[in-house]
Amino acid sequence: MLTRNPGGNAGPEKTATTPEVFVSEPFVLCDALSPVDSGLTARAQARLDNLTKPPGSLGRLEDAAARLYCIGQGRAPLRVDPAIMFTVAGDHGVAAEGVSPFPQKVTRQMVANFLKGGAAVNALCRAVGMDLRVVDAGCVGGAFAPHPLLLDVRCGDGTANFTRGPAMSGDMCRAALERGADLADAAAEQGYACVGVGEMGIANTTSATALYCALLHLEPENVAGPGTGASPEMIRRKARVVRRACAANAAALERGDPLGILAALGGFEIAVMTGIMLGAARRRLPVLVDGFISTAAFAAARALCPAVQGYCFLSHASAEPGYAAALRALDAERPLLDLGLRLGEGTGAALALHLLRSAAAVFNDMATFAQAGVTGEPETK
Amino acid sequence: MLTRNPGGNAGPEKTATTPEVFVSEPFVLCDALSPVDSGLTARAQARLDNLTKPPGSLGRLEDAAARLYCIGQGRAPLRVDPAIMFTVAGDHGVAAEGVSPFPQKVTRQMVANFLKGGAAVNALCRAVGMDLRVVDAGCVGGAFAPHPLLLDVRCGDGTANFTRGPAMSGDMCRAALERGADLADAAAEQGYACVGVGEMGIANTTSATALYCALLHLEPENVAGPGTGASPEMIRRKARVVRRACAANAAALERGDPLGILAALGGFEIAVMTGIMLGAARRRLPVLVDGFISTAAFAAARALCPAVQGYCFLSHASAEPGYAAALRALDAERPLLDLGLRLGEGTGAALALHLLRSAAAVFNDMATFAQAGVTGEPETK
Repeated sequence: MLTRNPGGNAGPEKTATTPEVFVSEPFVLCDALSPVDSGLTARAQARLDNLTKPPGSLGRLEDAAARLYCIGQGRAPLRVDPAIMFTVAGDHGVAAEGVSPFPQKVTRQMVANFLKGGAAVNALCRAVGMDLRVVDAGCVGGAFAPHPLLLDVRCGDGTANFTRGPAMSGDMCRAALERGADLADAAAEQGYACVGVGEMGIANTTSATALYCALLHLEPENVAGPGTGASPEMIRRKARVVRRACAANAAALERGDPLGILAALGGFEIAVMTGIMLGAARRRLPVLVDGFISTAAFAAARALCPAVQGYCFLSHASAEPGYAAALRALDAERPLLDLGLRLGEGTGAALALHLLRSAAAVFNDMATFAQAGVTGEPETK
Repeated sequence: MLTRNPGGNAGPEKTATTPEVFVSEPFVLCDALSPVDSGLTARAQARLDNLTKPPGSLGRLEDAAARLYCIGQGRAPLRVDPAIMFTVAGDHGVAAEGVSPFPQKVTRQMVANFLKGGAAVNALCRAVGMDLRVVDAGCVGGAFAPHPLLLDVRCGDGTANFTRGPAMSGDMCRAALERGADLADAAAEQGYACVGVGEMGIANTTSATALYCALLHLEPENVAGPGTGASPEMIRRKARVVRRACAANAAALERGDPLGILAALGGFEIAVMTGIMLGAARRRLPVLVDGFISTAAFAAARALCPAVQGYCFLSHASAEPGYAAALRALDAERPLLDLGLRLGEGTGAALALHLLRSAAAVFNDMATFAQAGVTGEPETK
């Protein structure tokens, strides 16, 4: 159950632990999603230019503030708190192909670590003051015992090995999207003002690589990288595995519909993340997208519904070498941070929340030239 | 008076508002400054590698954590809170040369804005939870009325115009360094665990440009930039002014002693910042260096005492075009943030505090593989 204080006040009626059976087309999600009103940018910039600083001197903080203003349809003060991180976990049949140096059971072990508060994303969410929920989208080994931080939206016991056919059915993929969107809905209903998205899933850099290749027409050899520490031999194997996966799912790829591609090559956690992004955008909430895998979910969301892009902030430049190629193909703006992170979990998104919060603080709290009695006009020289 | 809670508990006996008359050589400061013990890096990395994440996967956060560990001589947990920002203000005689689009009185107006809480650095210090003190190192117009956030270390009513001779005397420069070091001492005595340094001073990009040229042997035309918004014509004038300043102070530049160069081409606020950095390093406190002007103070500190470098974190890549040239010449590591900021005040340093805090949180709070029961060893494939 998604509540602001687990164990405290009662959650919304529509809880994530009892997901509805999927009923609607996912494109209903997109139909309800309006683009960010960028016509408000000038108004935001006018306010920023009136604050006691040279125009534009806060660089990308000003851009972020202007975008938050547009996302919020011109409401002020800007608000990103309280914020919530969804760290979504799922297992991948393709792990059987030897594409990760870590055994599949680590996904489940890390979910337990998230729930006990010992992982990097826990430390970083605490450091920035962001609530964390751990979402089981389909780890191998069955449902976890209930836990106040756990949201169960299981779509299966790991995906199928996509080198032999689709990772999941189209219906399952639609359901995963819908369940993700439901999580975003519940977050909005609980008053959250910003949503972060991160993941855990052994072998999911392979799934992300395959999605980038299929959605953005990239070559596996240009995208496959070490992930959590694959050897050069393993990276070459990863690229071959992605080629086989694309061949095994050639029909879906040729149709080119993003939902079919996501079902064929995605993972449960990736589809749920895609749904969270679409759902958050539908609720006009800013989204902090984590690294390599989360950005693959973003690529899928953008392919399903281009209007989602305006709501999403890429939080950090993943150290995964294929990330730069994906970024170029996405025509997305440079991520906010570049710290050489390659962990996932939502770690980069949690770090970047502070930048959005700072952007909002500048917009909301600074004095204008008139208020401060500061000379705002340059002298003529 | 520097107290953790202005108006609350009594400050240390040695207060910044009653600076001692300078008595000692500044190099006494440097003699008392020990290099960071980088021999502890391996121990820090061993701990980081034992935490539940692939080795090195938190990139520069891990580097920052390891450096904080070394700065703290192996004490754990790592600590950067409470942290304090010193925003140091001073005026520059060279403003008379028409090198800034803003009139000199803006320095004083902005100090008043800092004291009222309306500037960008106020908003960003509040957002990150960092105390702010405004230091008057020598604004034109005499002393400010006492204010709980104000520290008076005035070295004069603005510097002399350094196109006609030194900006200040060598004795005054030594005093400014000592007063800065005293501020850092007081911060250490008050229990602060991290010091941020930023500035305000109309025309101080010209002073910083001159310092870079003299300390790092750069050409004015390659360093001079728009600052708060100078026109191309004004930028060319700035470069010519720097050339004239270097000619007028040729003797000091030829001697090549950093103190003489700082006295000749610096500003009161820059010299005080240099002193804060040296003093903080002497007290083994990490320092967050702000942008273009603060990094010129860092260049001076490093020239006076190379060991200071290990204590200093460059917080952000200034958008000022000369910054990249200075960074290369300093052989310093890439700043933590690159957000196109060009404001100063300490804004970038305040933003970067969150990254140091996050680095400490990772180091302090994550579970080890053993604690979490997570398989840390890659499988042999």
